[in-house]
Formats: sequence, C-alpha cells, structure tokens
Amino acid sequence: MLNFNVHFPTRIRFGRGKIEELGGEILAYGNKVLLVYGRGSIKRNGLYEQIMQIFRDNSIAYVELSGVQANPRISSVHQGVKLCREHGVQLVLAVGGGSAIDCAKAVAAGVGYEGDPWDFFTGKARINHALPVGAVLTLAATGSEMNSNAVISNDETAQKLGIGSPVLIPRFSILDPEYTFSVPPEQTAAGTVDIMSHVFEQYFSPTPGTFIQDRLAEAILKTCIHYGPIAIAEPDNYEARANLMWAGSLALNGLLKAGKRTDWATHDIEHEISALYDITHGLGLAILTPHWMRYVLDAQTAPRLAEYARNVWNITGEETMIARAGIEKTAEFFESLRLATSLSAIGVEENRLAEMATKATSRGTLGAFKKLEYQDVLNILHAAYGG
Amino acid sequence: MLNFNVHFPTRIRFGRGKIEELGGEILAYGNKVLLVYGRGSIKRNGLYEQIMQIFRDNSIAYVELSGVQANPRISSVHQGVKLCREHGVQLVLAVGGGSAIDCAKAVAAGVGYEGDPWDFFTGKARINHALPVGAVLTLAATGSEMNSNAVISNDETAQKLGIGSPVLIPRFSILDPEYTFSVPPEQTAAGTVDIMSHVFEQYFSPTPGTFIQDRLAEAILKTCIHYGPIAIAEPDNYEARANLMWAGSLALNGLLKAGKRTDWATHDIEHEISALYDITHGLGLAILTPHWMRYVLDAQTAPRLAEYARNVWNITGEETMIARAGIEKTAEFFESLRLATSLSAIGVEENRLAEMATKATSRGTLGAFKKLEYQDVLNILHAAYGG
Repeated sequence: MLNFNVHFPTRIRFGRGKIEELGGEILAYGNKVLLVYGRGSIKRNGLYEQIMQIFRDNSIAYVELSGVQANPRISSVHQGVKLCREHGVQLVLAVGGGSAIDCAKAVAAGVGYEGDPWDFFTGKARINHALPVGAVLTLAATGSEMNSNAVISNDETAQKLGIGSPVLIPRFSILDPEYTFSVPPEQTAAGTVDIMSHVFEQYFSPTPGTFIQDRLAEAILKTCIHYGPIAIAEPDNYEARANLMWAGSLALNGLLKAGKRTDWATHDIEHEISALYDITHGLGLAILTPHWMRYVLDAQTAPRLAEYARNVWNITGEETMIARAGIEKTAEFFESLRLATSLSAIGVEENRLAEMATKATSRGTLGAFKKLEYQDVLNILHAAYGG
Repeated sequence: MLNFNVHFPTRIRFGRGKIEELGGEILAYGNKVLLVYGRGSIKRNGLYEQIMQIFRDNSIAYVELSGVQANPRISSVHQGVKLCREHGVQLVLAVGGGSAIDCAKAVAAGVGYEGDPWDFFTGKARINHALPVGAVLTLAATGSEMNSNAVISNDETAQKLGIGSPVLIPRFSILDPEYTFSVPPEQTAAGTVDIMSHVFEQYFSPTPGTFIQDRLAEAILKTCIHYGPIAIAEPDNYEARANLMWAGSLALNGLLKAGKRTDWATHDIEHEISALYDITHGLGLAILTPHWMRYVLDAQTAPRLAEYARNVWNITGEETMIARAGIEKTAEFFESLRLATSLSAIGVEENRLAEMATKATSRGTLGAFKKLEYQDVLNILHAAYGG
C-alpha cells in the first residue's frame, strides 16, 4: 500500500425527499445562484418546479445556464462564467448528471480567472480558487457529485480534457434515487458501466498489498452487477436505484484509489472516441473494456484478473483460465445490458482509429496496470472496432 | 435503504513518515496545543520526541495531559479542560489510540461549557461547539480518529457513557501504520476484534435493501480476518498493519451505517462490564459476540447470519445450518487470536451479572437486529460467563 491523503468534504443528503434540505444548504454560501442544467428533463419530471419553489421560499435569486450537453462544451462554460460575473453569483448549483456537474465545476473555477477557462484543461493555468459548487444528482454514473474532477469538450480543437482540484469538490450533493426512475434503459446501462469502469481503473493496479481497497472495489462491482439489470427491467425499483446511486458516488470519491497507483487507460482511450463522435461515455467504455482486459492479460496481470474472476464472478479454477473466464463474463454482462459491442456499430470510422491512438498517447504512455504505447492503443481500438 | 446524511470531514494523512505533515495541519488552527497521551509508550518508541521537534520547528506552544488511561476517566477530562483554559489552547492533539482521542474530544467539548463536562454524557447538556481536535493514531481499533464519538468512564458513578457530535470529528488524523508495530499481540488481537465488532453492530440490521453497505462491511470483516493473525505473528508487517489501520477507520466513520438501522447491543453490554472491571474493550467484545450471535439466531435473523457465513466465511449449505457454522467460525477465529473466551476467565464475578444487565437496560431495550430486554441480556451474560 502506498502513502495517501484523503478527504471527503461533500455533505451527502441521500434519499427520498431530500430536496427539502436544498434551501438550507445553499444559504450557507449565499443567496445568488447559477442554476446549471441540461436539456429540460428536469422540467418534465417536476424537479425544476420544486427547485423554483425552494428558491422562492428562501428568497434565493438565480440565473440559469441551461442546455448543457451530454459531453459538456467549453462554450457553455464561457457562458456560465459570464452569467456569474454579471449577476454576482455566490454558488453554482448543478441539477443533473455528471455533465451538468462538470460544467458547473468548470464555471466555478473560471469565474475568478481572467483568461480562458480552457487554460485549466490544457495545463496553461492552475485552479487556485473557485465558487462553491452544489449538486442535485439525477443520474447514477460519473461520481462527479462527490469528487474534484470535471471533463469538458472543446469542439474547435476536438479535445476532451479533464481538470481536478480540491476546491471543485461539491460542498453538498442531494442524492434522491427517485430522480433516476425516469432514466431510460440505455442510459441506465451506460451509467452502470461507467461506475464499473471507474472501479476497474482503480482495481487493476500494480500496487501490492491493497487488500482492503480491493475488497471494497469488489463490493461496488457486485452492487452494479446485481442491480444494473434490475434497474433496467424495473425503472421504479427504489432499492436498485438507491444502491446504484450510492455505488456511483463511492466508486470515484477517492476511497478506492487511496494507497494505490491507478490505471485510467480505458478512460483515456474512450475520451478520444467521444471527443470525435459525441457518444455516451459509458457506452464507449462498455465497448472498450473487455478488449482492454483481453489485451493486458499476461503472466504479470493474470493473478489480479483471476482474483477479479474469483471474487466478483465466483469462478474457480486455474489462474489464466479463470482470468479469461472473468473477462468473458464481463463482456457478456455488458451485452446483457443491451449495449453495443463494437465501435463500428456506433458509427466510428475505421480510418480515424490511428488519429485517436495518436491523440491518446500524445502526452506519453497510458496506464499503470500495464503500460500502453501508441501501437497497443491502436491494437485495442482495432479489436474494439470489430467487436 | 433508509434516507441518510453523511459527511467525512477528517483530512486523513496515511502512511510512513506522515508525521512530517503534523506541523502544517496544526498551524491551520493555531499554535497553542494541548497534547493528550497515555502512559508513555510514545516516549519509548520515539514518537514523543519527533512531535517535540515538530513543535520546536513550527514554534508551536504546548501543554501536556498525560497518563490518560485505557478506559479514559472524566477526571482526566476535568484536568484537560483546566489546562486548556489556563493556557489559551487552540487545538487538542491526541497521540495514541481511542482512549487518548476520546479524552481529547471530551476535553475539546468541555472547554466552552461552564458546567461539568460529564453533563454531556448524562444528557444534561448538549455539545454545541468544541475546540478543534487532531489525532496521531498509534492503535488500530476504535475508529475514533475519523468519527464524532467519545466514550468516557466515571469511577464515582461506575458508569461508562458515550457522546457524539459533528463538532468533535477530528479535523485531521495522521495514520502511520509503523506506530502500531510495537502494539503487543493481545492488544493487536483486541483491536482486531473491536474493528470487527463495529462492523457487526452495523451489518446485523433489520433494514432491507442495503446491498452496497453490506458488501462494504464484508470487505472490512475479510480484511480483519486476513490480517489480524498476520499482525500478531509478524508485528512489523507493514501491509498487515496498514490494512488493519485503515479498516479501523472505515469501520466506524459513518460509511457502514449510512442508510440502515444499527444494533449496538453487544457494545452496550460490554460497556457495563468494562465500567465495573476496567478490562480491554475488544477483549470483552470477543467474549460476548459469539454468545450474542447464538442468542439472537432465530427464523427472522437466520437469513442475514447465513449471508454472513456465506460471504465472509465461504460456507455453503442450508440456511440455519450455515448461520450456525458462521457463528462457530467467528468464535474459533477469536479463540485463534488467543483471547479469553469466558467472562469468568477474566475475573468477572457471577454475582454481578444481574447488576450489569440492569444497568445495560436501564434506558430501554437494547439492539435493533433483535431487541433485547433485561432477561435476554442476563441470559447472554450468563452464557458468556461460562464461555
């Protein structure tokens, strides 16, 4: 186990009706809010009107940044920064999934910076302070509601890049599983895979002696495997939605990575796909993950892949054999969620794979569980293209 | 799953040499410290001198409250409060295990209260504010380094009572597993059982639909079962000490109880034993736990006890049978740690069991997994007396 520092400062308000606590949470930081949301699903399900009522009851003034897209754009961030400055906003409140929350974080960081907030993503500038961020979560997937990270796309440069800073961690997040009842099956499936992928990126690590972290990771994987199919079949199943929602937050709040090196190669590759094609992140991960697993399986990685097969899928037998069986179980599980299984099936063009591999490795090798060079990434992309 | 609020504000600094970060952590709150510690083990292992050097290097002034006992007394708390007031202390720093940290919390709460801090324990007064508390942990057991609770004994009234308040959660905790290398085998065993008991109190719950919490709980139990014996056999095994230390913090920081009703009957009974006999808390728990499990096993509780047997001990078979087998595995495991297995063996007198049962149930029935009345508690104590 490596040395680590962890801190989980987000106040979690979890469960049915927890929106009632929103007013009090906001007023701890001020009464001028930027409300960040997507394309109107919160108007259809009544959440928007509930929030308006809370704003009225608590004399909270607000401006809106709406229409934030699934892979949020830097143009939305620019717009949000402008609104915050014009209206003296004191807290950025995201209502939605990871896209709204990530956009809110980037806006919060940008307000106090004179240059273009994209500078944070390219490494040209550092985030030192930010407006406080709060979240009302409506999708179990990214974990952004309890962590320091944000990923934003730039159409002009065809880049999708991330930032991270402790000042971006939401001060509070309201997690009501009922808000995810209306998430359609494909989105529920993609969210489940996104959570599992976050766990994989931290579980598959070269660091020895991380027993407790690994058992915790397996706990979250089992939760996804148990409840993903239930939430798809019964969208209003509170127990399934609640377990998935809490799994999403715990998968990426720092708990699983504490004390270990983490991988993130699959995410890095997927970001290059969704930077070009605007596909759902979790869908891209579902296609890539089994191919990544097959590609990295070797004598050195087999023990951990076998441990995964044994502890998560209850497969017993000889090490390499069960490592392979665990990988195939993973692929079958993703397929059972009715997600596409090849890049070709979702419209990715074969002649752009090299470009993606180049961009993915432009800042060096990927991964830690197994290091990947340009040719490795291209091989994985080719395998995933065929499915 | 029930609604819940959670918040983990403690900054964790985990690993070898993390004491280096102590100066910076303290100076965020001030430069006048009350140093709370026990009976000198930190002087023997060099930690005390390291801390003195950090105080000198950072111009931190300090006063000492030393000699805090294993079941810390309210008299130490009185003494600490007096020192804080006399010297204008700004932060209470505990160096030690749960006893030092619990004492530090009670002192921190008492400083701003005009009456006797024991009032907080009897419910006569409420904790509204406290001096900030920090911790340097030297024993993996109580979890006090990351939670809001403190347990203090009162010799005059022969009571051992607890308090809890968000303002008591340590602002930072330094967790260096190497500080536990010198913990002797019996203490290591008792600490391991203490951690497991904290998990049991939250795992054995009547709340349905808490899959993720239960898998996380099992992860921590497996960690204790795997590493407890290793840490006893090889006191300098960093991996074992590190996994146990982090297990202790995660077992009782709010993660496992989020969304469920919890039991705590075994702890409530044990507190009555150690209030009278000053035994090691973990030892009392090791004796009581298997008897509690046997006593509460019935048609309603069998499914969860069987789940425990299946997931933690890998026992398969018919429900009631494996529930029983899991209980016996637990008893055997505690025995394998060379802990006493009966109250009679540790000097408890049979003619005082009724008094303990009376006091344990003086504020109502105990437990939630199964509710226990006076006669139930007495039956468990009698069974544990014989072993």
